[in-house]
Amino acid sequence: MGKRIGIGLLGLGTVGSGVAKIIQNPNGRNPLVKQVELVRVAVRDLNRPRSVSIPTSILTQDPQSVIDDPSVELVVEVMGGLEPARSLILRAISAGKSVVTANKAVIARHGEEIATAANSAGVYVLIEAAVGGGIPIIEPLKQSLGGNKIKKVSGIINGTTNYILTKMAKEGAAYIDVIKDAQNLGYAEADPEADVEGFDAADKIAILSGLAFGGPIERDKIPTEGISNLLSRDIDYAKELGYEVKLLAVAEKFQTNQTEGKAIPLAVWVRPTLVPSEHPLAGVSGVNNAILVEGDPIGEVMFYGPGAGAGPTASAVVADILNIAGISAIGNSKNKLDPLLAGSSWRNCQLEESRKFIQKNYLRLKTQDTPGVIGKIGSVFGDHGVSIQSIVQFDSQENDAEIVVITHEVSQGQFVDSLEKIKGLSEVKGLAAQMACI
Amino acid sequence: MGKRIGIGLLGLGTVGSGVAKIIQNPNGRNPLVKQVELVRVAVRDLNRPRSVSIPTSILTQDPQSVIDDPSVELVVEVMGGLEPARSLILRAISAGKSVVTANKAVIARHGEEIATAANSAGVYVLIEAAVGGGIPIIEPLKQSLGGNKIKKVSGIINGTTNYILTKMAKEGAAYIDVIKDAQNLGYAEADPEADVEGFDAADKIAILSGLAFGGPIERDKIPTEGISNLLSRDIDYAKELGYEVKLLAVAEKFQTNQTEGKAIPLAVWVRPTLVPSEHPLAGVSGVNNAILVEGDPIGEVMFYGPGAGAGPTASAVVADILNIAGISAIGNSKNKLDPLLAGSSWRNCQLEESRKFIQKNYLRLKTQDTPGVIGKIGSVFGDHGVSIQSIVQFDSQENDAEIVVITHEVSQGQFVDSLEKIKGLSEVKGLAAQMACI
Repeated sequence: MGKRIGIGLLGLGTVGSGVAKIIQNPNGRNPLVKQVELVRVAVRDLNRPRSVSIPTSILTQDPQSVIDDPSVELVVEVMGGLEPARSLILRAISAGKSVVTANKAVIARHGEEIATAANSAGVYVLIEAAVGGGIPIIEPLKQSLGGNKIKKVSGIINGTTNYILTKMAKEGAAYIDVIKDAQNLGYAEADPEADVEGFDAADKIAILSGLAFGGPIERDKIPTEGISNLLSRDIDYAKELGYEVKLLAVAEKFQTNQTEGKAIPLAVWVRPTLVPSEHPLAGVSGVNNAILVEGDPIGEVMFYGPGAGAGPTASAVVADILNIAGISAIGNSKNKLDPLLAGSSWRNCQLEESRKFIQKNYLRLKTQDTPGVIGKIGSVFGDHGVSIQSIVQFDSQENDAEIVVITHEVSQGQFVDSLEKIKGLSEVKGLAAQMACI
Repeated sequence: MGKRIGIGLLGLGTVGSGVAKIIQNPNGRNPLVKQVELVRVAVRDLNRPRSVSIPTSILTQDPQSVIDDPSVELVVEVMGGLEPARSLILRAISAGKSVVTANKAVIARHGEEIATAANSAGVYVLIEAAVGGGIPIIEPLKQSLGGNKIKKVSGIINGTTNYILTKMAKEGAAYIDVIKDAQNLGYAEADPEADVEGFDAADKIAILSGLAFGGPIERDKIPTEGISNLLSRDIDYAKELGYEVKLLAVAEKFQTNQTEGKAIPLAVWVRPTLVPSEHPLAGVSGVNNAILVEGDPIGEVMFYGPGAGAGPTASAVVADILNIAGISAIGNSKNKLDPLLAGSSWRNCQLEESRKFIQKNYLRLKTQDTPGVIGKIGSVFGDHGVSIQSIVQFDSQENDAEIVVITHEVSQGQFVDSLEKIKGLSEVKGLAAQMACI
C-alpha cells in the first residue's frame, strides 16, 4: 500500500457528488477505493447547498488551480459541455496528469486530439462514464473483446428517448405529452434537443465505433434522426407487425472485402428503428440502455443497465479511477502506458454514405382507398429491385387508406429512388412516416 | 513494441484450438494480439487430426515441459478437469509465470490456494473464460464495478440446462427426451450430471460470489438442486402464472446489519426457479447465459451472451492474454501486481444456512378434490407466518386435484416447517414439485 492518489474533481453536480460519496464511503467496496483521496474540487458556486459535505478548504471556483495543484495526480472532469472542459482536459494532460471524464460531447468531437496528446504525454484518459451510464461498455470494447473482429455495435444509448418511446408504446400517448411528463420527472432536460433529435446518441455511437473498429470517425457525418416527429400510430402499427420502436444507434462494418491497410468502411447511423419483439434490444424499456456487440469469434454479447443518473454514472467514473489507481500500484515509469487501457487508434475508419447502407425499411403511405394501389406500389419497388417483406393496408376513412410497407434488406440508394417514384403515383397522397427496421 | 510474449498452451481441444486460431490470425483484432506468440503446445495425442495447423516442432505430450520451457512466459490452461490441471497451474506459478485458465472446477475448489500462491509469486491468474463463456463478467466484477457495494449476483450460467428448459417450455417436451436431443446436438455431454444437477452452475456462482463479495466461499456448502426431476407440467403451470422456469444461481448479501471486520453473511444457492416473464433473465433462451449484478450505487446491470462454445470461450481466454500482454508493456518489476487485475480477497465471507434464506417458493401439491382443501393449506401457512401470493387449483381427475402455491418472501425455515405440516394433512396426497421463485 503506497500513499493515496490525490484526485482533483472538476464539477460537483449530480455525477461529481456521486463520485465524492463513493470515495468518502469506501467500506464494502473494492479496497482500492481507500487508496484514492479527494484533494481539490472545483465548483461553479462555493455557497450552493450540496448533498455531500466537502471541506471548504479544498473547494475552489478556479478549475485551473485544481489541475495545477501538485497534490492532484488524477483529474476527474464531470462538468460537461465542450468548453472549458476540452481545454481543461488538455491542460491536465500537459501537466502529465491522467484524466477520467464523463464528457461524451468532448470525446466524440475532440477524442482524437485528446488521445494523441495523452499518448505523447504518457498519461491515460479514461471515458467509461461517457457512454451507457453505469454499464461497463468502454472497458469491454477496449479490453475484454480485444480478441474479436468486431462486426457491429448497436444499441439503445439514450435513456431519455427510450423513456419517451416506452411510454408512448404503453399508453398510446402523443410525443408532446410524454416529453412534458419526462421533463417534469427530470428524465428530459428543459431543452431536450440533444436527446430527442438523436445528437447525444450520435456522440455516443461515434465513441463506441472508434473503440470497436480501432480508429476515429467524423462525428458530424453520422446520419442522425431523432424521435420528435414520431407518432404513436406508427408505434402501434409496428407492434401489430411484431416490432417495438427504439431509437437505435448502429455502427457496422461493410460486408465488402477489406484490403489490409486501407480504411475500413463503416455504416454508422442513429434512427428510430423497428426492432423485432423477440430481439434482445426490444425488451429494453424506460431509461435503461443496452448495447449489443457482434464479433468473431464471440458471436453476440449484450450489456444492459441504467444508462444515466448520478449513481450509475459515478460508478463508471470510479471504475476508471480504480483502473488508474491499480496500474499506479505497479509503480511504472511515467511514459510507459498499458496499450490496452490507453486504447489508442490502430487503423483508419471511413464512414460510407447512407445511400450505400443495406437496410430494412418501414414506411407508411397515405393513399386513395382504391383497388390496385398495393399492386402499383409493389410494382414500383419491384422495378427498382426493392424486395418487400410485408405490405399491409391498415386503416381507411372515406377515400383515404394507410398502407404500411416493410422491405427486406435493400440498398438505401435503390430504396430512396423507388420511394420518389412512389410519391409521384397519382393514388399516393404522401409519405406519412419512415423508419429503419432490423 | 517490445518482443513478443511467448504463450505455452496446455490443451488443444475446442477451446485451445479457438485460442490458437485467434493468435494465428491477428488482423482486424486488437493490435496487441500481434504481440503474443504460441511457442509450446501440450496435447494428449500428437497424431490426432485438428482444425488448426500447429508446427509439429512446438507440440508435445508433456505439459510440464511446456511450463518449464524458458521461452514460455504465460501459461494458458484449457485442459479442464481437476488434476493434473491444478498441479500444472501451481507449477507455472512457482516458475514465476502468469496463468490464464478456463477451468471453473479448479478455480471453484482451489481458487484460494492458487490466488495465494500467485500473489506471493507476483504473477497473475486470470479466469475470464471460467464463467459465462465469452461474456465479460469476471473483469467487470473485478474492475468496472469496483466502486459498488455489491448486493446480489444472479444468473443463468449453465447453457446446457437453459437449452433443455427452453426446449421443454416451447415444446412441452419431457426432460428425458430433450436431454437425448441435447446430447445428439453436442449441447449436453454423454455424462450430463455436472450440468443437469447444477454442479457446474455451483462452481461458477462460487467464483462469481468470491469476486463480487471479496472473499472465498466454501464451494461444497452451496445448496444445489438441478433440473433432472423437473416436469414440463410445472413449466406450463409457471407460464400460466406469468413465469418462466430457469436454473438460477444466486449469491446475495444478507440484509442484516453487517459489523465492519466480521465475515459478510451470504445466501448462495442453485435451484430451478420461477422468474417473472417481464424480468430481464426470463428472456434468456437456448444456450445463452446472462448474469445480473445489483450494486450500490449502480443499480442493476446485466451481461448477456453465449455461455459456452469454442469461439466465445476462446474470446475470453484471449481477453486475459491481452490483459497480461498490456500490463507487461509497462515493463514493471516482477513482483508488483496491479491489485485490480490480480483481484485478491479482501474480506471474509460466510455462507448462511438455507433455513435462514428469505425466498419466494413455488410448490405443487397432489390433494383430494374435496371442498376446503385450499382453506386448510392456507391456514397452515398462515399459522407459520408464511404469506401466500397465489394459490390455484389447476387440474382435477376423479378424486385428485393439483394445487399450486406461490408464497411471498418468507424465511425458508418457517416455510419448510409449514410444509411438513401440510404434508401431514389427510387431504394432501403428496408434494409433487417445489421450486424457488423470484
